[in-house]
Amino acid sequence: MTWLDLPADTLFGLDNLPYGVFSHGERTRRAGVAVGEQVLDLTAAAEGESFGRLLTAGVLNPLLADGPDTWAEVRARVREWLSEPRHADRIRPHLVPHNEITSHLPIEVADYVDFYSSEQHAINASRIFTGGDDLVPVNWKHLPIGYHGRAGTVVASGTPVVRPAGQRKPRRAEKPSFGAAKRLDFEAEVGFVVGAPSELGAPVPIDEFPRHVFGVCLVNDWSARDLQGWESQPLGPFLGKSFATSMSPWLVPLAALEHARVPQPAQDPEPFEYLRAAEPWSLDLALEIRINGHLVSSPPFATQYWTGAQQLAHLTVNGASLRTGDLYASGTVTGPAKNQRGSLLELSWGGREPLALGPGETRAFLEDGDEVVISASAPGPGGARIGFGEVRGTVAPAVV
Amino acid sequence: MTWLDLPADTLFGLDNLPYGVFSHGERTRRAGVAVGEQVLDLTAAAEGESFGRLLTAGVLNPLLADGPDTWAEVRARVREWLSEPRHADRIRPHLVPHNEITSHLPIEVADYVDFYSSEQHAINASRIFTGGDDLVPVNWKHLPIGYHGRAGTVVASGTPVVRPAGQRKPRRAEKPSFGAAKRLDFEAEVGFVVGAPSELGAPVPIDEFPRHVFGVCLVNDWSARDLQGWESQPLGPFLGKSFATSMSPWLVPLAALEHARVPQPAQDPEPFEYLRAAEPWSLDLALEIRINGHLVSSPPFATQYWTGAQQLAHLTVNGASLRTGDLYASGTVTGPAKNQRGSLLELSWGGREPLALGPGETRAFLEDGDEVVISASAPGPGGARIGFGEVRGTVAPAVV
Repeated sequence: MTWLDLPADTLFGLDNLPYGVFSHGERTRRAGVAVGEQVLDLTAAAEGESFGRLLTAGVLNPLLADGPDTWAEVRARVREWLSEPRHADRIRPHLVPHNEITSHLPIEVADYVDFYSSEQHAINASRIFTGGDDLVPVNWKHLPIGYHGRAGTVVASGTPVVRPAGQRKPRRAEKPSFGAAKRLDFEAEVGFVVGAPSELGAPVPIDEFPRHVFGVCLVNDWSARDLQGWESQPLGPFLGKSFATSMSPWLVPLAALEHARVPQPAQDPEPFEYLRAAEPWSLDLALEIRINGHLVSSPPFATQYWTGAQQLAHLTVNGASLRTGDLYASGTVTGPAKNQRGSLLELSWGGREPLALGPGETRAFLEDGDEVVISASAPGPGGARIGFGEVRGTVAPAVV
Repeated sequence: MTWLDLPADTLFGLDNLPYGVFSHGERTRRAGVAVGEQVLDLTAAAEGESFGRLLTAGVLNPLLADGPDTWAEVRARVREWLSEPRHADRIRPHLVPHNEITSHLPIEVADYVDFYSSEQHAINASRIFTGGDDLVPVNWKHLPIGYHGRAGTVVASGTPVVRPAGQRKPRRAEKPSFGAAKRLDFEAEVGFVVGAPSELGAPVPIDEFPRHVFGVCLVNDWSARDLQGWESQPLGPFLGKSFATSMSPWLVPLAALEHARVPQPAQDPEPFEYLRAAEPWSLDLALEIRINGHLVSSPPFATQYWTGAQQLAHLTVNGASLRTGDLYASGTVTGPAKNQRGSLLELSWGGREPLALGPGETRAFLEDGDEVVISASAPGPGGARIGFGEVRGTVAPAVV
């Protein structure tokens, strides 16, 4: 029920209402809410509201920091404005066509953590790199493996991704060489954004997940496989990942994902108590990956072994504190089928089976000018779907 | 030459003048400069100066962001104030005894990177974990290995370090267990703080090091060896490090370290061009590590294989951008002698040869209540020494 003229099959109905930051014309960066094919200028619409002061920073961090009661209040108010005809005259001037805006990074990123939580992705990586071995690492089913990435190079969707240079050593080469990466890849991931911070020394219990995590977005964890392969022992990925990580513009609040929650895949062995949740937090997101417009994969997020709630509990179990704007990503989302793989590494099986893109066109790894678009949607109430929009990036040539 | 009454052997003479952030009495956090046994309230002293606006944030980031010309201007002005008697009456009221202040984290940390650049430390780690093998990893002499750490848990010197809980699996155990870390350790490191940012996609040439790095501090990269051992394959350290990293309060500007610059140890093989500097940036810092007041080690920073300039060039060669407040640490500083080891892991040889602390007192790893203090000094002009102060932390019991 809304006074807006929304298409029946919109992915951005009143049950979604994701938050972002945009600019329009001459105006400064403002908070927005996507609805149908428009964007509500939330910063303008909220003037005079008690929460209006949280929406003037040009990033969503102050809103996120204010915690779950405020998130619920703002969401309820926005729904009310867009539902009840008595608000229509005041709100209508604050709606801007989506195709007229420029989207920006929705948050100032505090720390960025990347996990490795798809079992099929871990199996594929093991098979590609060691040949034929289906085993995941010995610790893999005991804890969600993760590492810190570079927060300062998390970029807005649409930012060109410059092909990185660096050292690499092909397996048969005697010495390393230096130059532009030859094995540039994407990784389709789901990101979780922390709103409410936590205290140093105090682990966050798993069931507190929805009190700390504000919402969900899409992440492309660009990866230079040749740089990564040479540098990663013994301390993990560094320059092979740190040149860019793209983030989608719209944060879908957890409150919009109630209908997307599904039971978690069985876990054997049973995880330690701090990783056992009272409520399921697997999310039935359907991802799609397109290269230059061709649909190349449709990874199912519900198949992930470790959930966002487990990742949060693990991340803090050692007493590490959370800050507003912390972003942590699921790791590459890969399902069991061939057309559910979340990276080109897997889709081209280490480059050995180049992927067909179109007539006469194949890819082992990304070429300059290639555009990668990752999108997703999830079940909403009454058969509706909740859209995540997309994270988009085009490969620019190396500068060396 | 100064109107101040400075002890002849002070580590904080006019050739040092390190910057920090402190509070005193009821006043808010302010920028300070350590001189002798006092601290100059720089925020107050600089009122009316063009750079005064850079000193009111409660962190040094705005000063650092303004770049090397401003750093030189502020340093010259502070020296003038403390040298020329005509400034004495105005400046004297802004001097506070060092023992009356509370020091805070000097910067808001953007990204935190930890390197692994002491050859002797890498050799010791290899010998301790694999037994008798003197080889460093195959990539080690080609690039300064590093990884991202958690910026949000970089804490001020003096912050208690709560013993972390987590998963660990002793080598002979069949399954992992959960509990408080048993192998808690320190790592004595030297930190570099980035002032001037750089553009995404544009590597920073090695000789631009002093135009981007503002100064140097001391870092204790607390490590839970048992957590780290179980979690680190294949993506590197995570919870074994992310519970706390302590940073010393005073940033010694590069300009104060001209007399500490020494030729770099020979590098074989010759590194790639982006890692070759025109000027030497090895620094002759003498570190000292004390546990509960006992001097247990004196690591020499000049022996590091990779310099801070090489680390900066490597960190950005893939196009990763720098932000004001980026902190990168050298990795554990360990010299060739037994009493030059920078971690308890090495000093107790993996716990097998507990370290004598005092009569009847030994340590394999840190116990609750242990205090670790890392201090350092470097050569200054005319036989003077430049002090770094210290980074200090006491182990608090686990909360599990």
